[in-house]
Amino acid sequence: MDKALVIGIAGGSGSGKTTLTHRLTQALGDDATVLTHDSYYRAHANMTYEELSQLNYDHPDAYENDLLVRHLDALRRGESVQRPVYDFAIHNRTKQTVTVEPSRVIVVEGILILANPALRSHMDLRVFVDAPADLRILRRLRRDVRERGRSIESVIEQYLATVRPMHDAFVEPSKRYADIVVPTDGESDLSAAVTAIMGYVRMQLQA
Amino acid sequence: MDKALVIGIAGGSGSGKTTLTHRLTQALGDDATVLTHDSYYRAHANMTYEELSQLNYDHPDAYENDLLVRHLDALRRGESVQRPVYDFAIHNRTKQTVTVEPSRVIVVEGILILANPALRSHMDLRVFVDAPADLRILRRLRRDVRERGRSIESVIEQYLATVRPMHDAFVEPSKRYADIVVPTDGESDLSAAVTAIMGYVRMQLQA
Repeated sequence: MDKALVIGIAGGSGSGKTTLTHRLTQALGDDATVLTHDSYYRAHANMTYEELSQLNYDHPDAYENDLLVRHLDALRRGESVQRPVYDFAIHNRTKQTVTVEPSRVIVVEGILILANPALRSHMDLRVFVDAPADLRILRRLRRDVRERGRSIESVIEQYLATVRPMHDAFVEPSKRYADIVVPTDGESDLSAAVTAIMGYVRMQLQA
Repeated sequence: MDKALVIGIAGGSGSGKTTLTHRLTQALGDDATVLTHDSYYRAHANMTYEELSQLNYDHPDAYENDLLVRHLDALRRGESVQRPVYDFAIHNRTKQTVTVEPSRVIVVEGILILANPALRSHMDLRVFVDAPADLRILRRLRRDVRERGRSIESVIEQYLATVRPMHDAFVEPSKRYADIVVPTDGESDLSAAVTAIMGYVRMQLQA
């Protein structure tokens, strides 16, 4: 393997980030590995569950970006890495890790991946998936209530307390660092954007 | 020639639309033909210069979109077309035309090309070049004063009278119809976006 490409997929909660990532990895097949930023939430050794519950998980500092950057460097060199496993139920990193093998394309996905300068400088192509705030909260609400059994009120409370202010402070301003932004509130069904990103990968891997 | 691709490049005045179009056509070489929306400003047979000066050239209705759509259809069928020639000095279409030969890629460039449903449905890839309003007006001001010999005051007057209100009413809302948006106020030098669009073209022409 001569080189590996790193594609970053950012965007607010409910923007359609996961859908785009899924479409891309389907198209890339065995060539792609996905690293989710959430796997790199910081480990907290000596905190109680109560203390852990109070942390702001929508802030850029919630992530161990140094570790992710080291992993990207290693994968680019053709080495495998031990990716951490985060458990949302206990708000903490587990003792397990998952071996990630190097691949031709590494897709890094997460709300805040473009907010960190070191992290975004490790990406070849920076993509930001974009949708208006009302559509994003409706998608999040539907997902959290239907699939995660949350109450409407708890979703709204969390949204107003951290998701929304952190989005405005850190996610939205990071959009300008994208090479391309993909709107998900128009007529486009993502197909042209997926083809463009795939085309980028082909061009770069052939070069 | 089996098929022709139509790539639309939209974006407000001063967004960097022309730069992206230039980078693309350099990369595409003989494969590309550019059609500028401004060439399709309506002809006005019986109006005085004074009346022509009063028209709003930043409104979607200023363009003869039907003609451009017919030309795109013809070029896709492999036929050449007679493109109109617009003279900004007399605010009117001239009697000359320019023969445009069919090519594999047709780049349609203009501020309002995504605001017209028929026109945008004739595009395979819709791109919107995006920058904040302050950067756009500074780029426009510099260009109009340096390259076109305009006074600062006349540029500001025109901007406040038509450019700005028409941008907010028609250009900005058309961004959501883009397949990809290219920000020009961040760290990106357009290279990744150009490669992605080129990759799109390669993928589609090979398909």
